[in-house]
Amino acid sequence: MKESASRWRVNYQQAIEYEIINSPHLFQLQNDSILSVGKTEQARRFVVMDRNVEKYYAEEIHNYFSHHQIEAKIISIPSGEEHKTLESYLTIVQELDAFPINRRNEPIIAIGGGVLTDIVGFVASSYRRGLPHLKVPTTLMGYVDASIGIKTGININGNKNRLGAFAPPQKVFLDKTFLKTLPKRHILNGVCEIIKLAIIKDADLFRLLETHGSQSIEEYFQNAEGDLILDTAIQGMLEELEPNLFEEDLMRKVDFGHTFSYGLETRHETNLLHGEAVLLDMMVSSLIAKSRQFISEEDISRIFQLIDQLGIELDTTILDSDMLWASLNERTYHRDGLQRVPMPLGIGGCTFVNDIKQDEIINAVKKLEDRMILNYDHA
Amino acid sequence: MKESASRWRVNYQQAIEYEIINSPHLFQLQNDSILSVGKTEQARRFVVMDRNVEKYYAEEIHNYFSHHQIEAKIISIPSGEEHKTLESYLTIVQELDAFPINRRNEPIIAIGGGVLTDIVGFVASSYRRGLPHLKVPTTLMGYVDASIGIKTGININGNKNRLGAFAPPQKVFLDKTFLKTLPKRHILNGVCEIIKLAIIKDADLFRLLETHGSQSIEEYFQNAEGDLILDTAIQGMLEELEPNLFEEDLMRKVDFGHTFSYGLETRHETNLLHGEAVLLDMMVSSLIAKSRQFISEEDISRIFQLIDQLGIELDTTILDSDMLWASLNERTYHRDGLQRVPMPLGIGGCTFVNDIKQDEIINAVKKLEDRMILNYDHA
Repeated sequence: MKESASRWRVNYQQAIEYEIINSPHLFQLQNDSILSVGKTEQARRFVVMDRNVEKYYAEEIHNYFSHHQIEAKIISIPSGEEHKTLESYLTIVQELDAFPINRRNEPIIAIGGGVLTDIVGFVASSYRRGLPHLKVPTTLMGYVDASIGIKTGININGNKNRLGAFAPPQKVFLDKTFLKTLPKRHILNGVCEIIKLAIIKDADLFRLLETHGSQSIEEYFQNAEGDLILDTAIQGMLEELEPNLFEEDLMRKVDFGHTFSYGLETRHETNLLHGEAVLLDMMVSSLIAKSRQFISEEDISRIFQLIDQLGIELDTTILDSDMLWASLNERTYHRDGLQRVPMPLGIGGCTFVNDIKQDEIINAVKKLEDRMILNYDHA
Repeated sequence: MKESASRWRVNYQQAIEYEIINSPHLFQLQNDSILSVGKTEQARRFVVMDRNVEKYYAEEIHNYFSHHQIEAKIISIPSGEEHKTLESYLTIVQELDAFPINRRNEPIIAIGGGVLTDIVGFVASSYRRGLPHLKVPTTLMGYVDASIGIKTGININGNKNRLGAFAPPQKVFLDKTFLKTLPKRHILNGVCEIIKLAIIKDADLFRLLETHGSQSIEEYFQNAEGDLILDTAIQGMLEELEPNLFEEDLMRKVDFGHTFSYGLETRHETNLLHGEAVLLDMMVSSLIAKSRQFISEEDISRIFQLIDQLGIELDTTILDSDMLWASLNERTYHRDGLQRVPMPLGIGGCTFVNDIKQDEIINAVKKLEDRMILNYDHA
C-alpha cells in the first residue's frame, strides 16, 4: 500500500448484495420469510411503520412478532412527504437509543411507503455507522420503485432529499396484498412509474398496460396479469439500477420524468404525489421529443390514450414554464453541468439531450394544455 | 439478476480508493497539492476548519485560495469533543446550502483535528447522498489516526459517534508543519495512539519511541526521526485498516486501548483527551495481560518507563472499576456479544480475550494506582 516515501494508497472492494423477494402474506403467522434474516432466539426487532400501515395492519404485525416470540418494538411515524424530515429521523434515533438491538443480526424492519423506507433507510445507514435493514414496501410506488434501490434520504431547509445515503438493504420483501388497502389515487401514483419504464425502455410492458392495465388497477394488482405487470416493471427497474447502483453514470433512463417534476414537487409538496409530478414531466418531455421528431404523433396518442384509459387525471393547471425551466437548471446542476434529460425514442426507446431551450418547454406546456381542453370538450 | 419467479438478486462491487499524501507546507502559495483534486478553472471550494486552525492559519489559508483564484467559502466551527454535535453538523449543512458546489469536482476540504474531520466527513457522506471530501489533519491525533481511516461521526443523546458513516475521503494531505502550533498536551495525545501501535504490533516502533521519542516530542516532530516515527505509525495503522476498512472483522488490533476508554471519555468528556483515555485503558489492559502472563514484568516496566520518559502523566484518580466494567459491557455489545479485547503479547504482539472478569479489572486498577504512588515516592 505504500507507494513511495511520501504517499500511501488504500484500495478496497466492497461487495454489495441484496435480494428482492416476492412473499405474499408476509405477516401471516406461518410465513417465516421476514424472520429468515437475523437471529430468532432471544431476539429483538425494531420495526418502523407509517401511520397508514398502522391503521390497517398494526394488530396483524404485533401478533406476528409476539407469536414468534420476538421482542419487538414497533413504532409508527406520520405518513406523507411533509413528514420526510429531520424531526422524523431524530424520533427514530431516539427510539433506537431506548431499545438497543444487536447491530449484526437484528435488522431494522421498515414497513411503509417510499417516504417511510427512505427515512428509515437513512437512519439505518447512519446509526452506529450502519445497521442492517429490511424493507417492506406497502405502496405501489414503494413496490416498483423506492424500495428496490438503495437511495435513502430526508428533506431539509426546503430541499428534497438533501440529506441521505446510498444504503443497500439486507433484503426487500414484496407482499402485494398490502396494495389492497391503498386509495385508488395511490395505486395510480405507482402506475405512473410503471408507465415511465414502459415508455423509456419496454414496449412489451407498454402493451401489457394497454391490454391488462385497467383490469389490474381495478383489482389492485391482485390478479395474475397484475403480477406480470409488477414483475416486469421490477425486472426493468433492476436492469437499470444494478449496473449503476451508486449513480456514477449520470445518464439514467430511469430519470425520465424526473427533471421538471423536481420543481413541481417542491412547490406542491402537500397536494401532489410523486408519480403525478413524474407523469406531468413525462408528458412535457414527450411533447418536446415529439417536436424534435424523436417520437411520432401516433405514439404520443397511444400514451395519452393509455393514461386516459387507466383513469389517470392530469392537472395541467399547475404547469408553470418558468418553474419547469428553473427545475431543469437545478437538475442540470445536480447532473454535473449537463442537462442529461432522458427522452423517449418512439415507445420503448431512449435518448438523452443536453440542449433543451426554454421556448421548447413553453411550447410543450401550451400543446399539453390544448390537448387537455380538447379532451375535456370531447368528454 | 433474476433468480427465480419469486426473487431477484442485486450484486455490485464498489471500488474504494484513496491516497494519503505527505505534503508539508500545504498552504504555501507554490504548493498545488490540494488543488490537484477537482477543477480549478472558475472553481469553488467549501472549506471547514476548526477554531484552533482559524486562530493560527486563517490568513494563510484565505490567501492561498484567493491567490489561486478559487472562490472559497471558508467557515470555522468550535473545537473540542463537546462540539461534536448535531448542531455543528447542521451548521455546516446550512452553509453548504448557501454556497452550492459541484458535487463531482469541487471537493469539500476539512482542515482540523479528529473532531472536525469526523463531523465534516459525516456531512460529506450525507449531503446530497455524498460529496467528495479532502482531509487535512492538523493535530497529531488526526495525523496518525482519525484522518487516515474512513470513520466519521457525531455524538448525540450522550452517546459517542452514535450517528456517522464509513466515508472514504478522496485524499488525505499530511502537513506536519501544523503540529508546530499544538499545545504539548495535544502532541502527547497523539503520541498515545503511536504507543498503542508500538505495543500491539510493532516492537521496532516501540524502540524508535524509546530512542527518539522524547527528542521528537521536544521538536514537535519536525525532525527527521520524527518523520520516521510518524511514517512508521501511519504504515502500521494502514496495515490494520486497509483489509478491514468497514470493520466487518470485529477483532481489531487497533482497538487496543479502546475498551475501557469509551466509558472514561463519556464521563470526562470536557477534560480528558482521547489519547489520555486510551493510555489509561492500555495500562489497565496491560496489567490484566500481565496477570494472565501474556506479557512479562520486564516489558511492563519498559512501557511505564517509556511513558515517564516521554513526559506523559497518567491521572489514575479517575479510574473507577464499576465504570470500566460497564464500558467493557457496552463495547461487548458493540462487538456483537463478545468482548474481543486486544491484549499485548509481549511488546509488539497481540492476542484477543473474551473472558475478562470484573475482579481482574479491580486488581489491575489497584496495581496501577500502587505503581503511580510508588513512582510519586521515587520522584
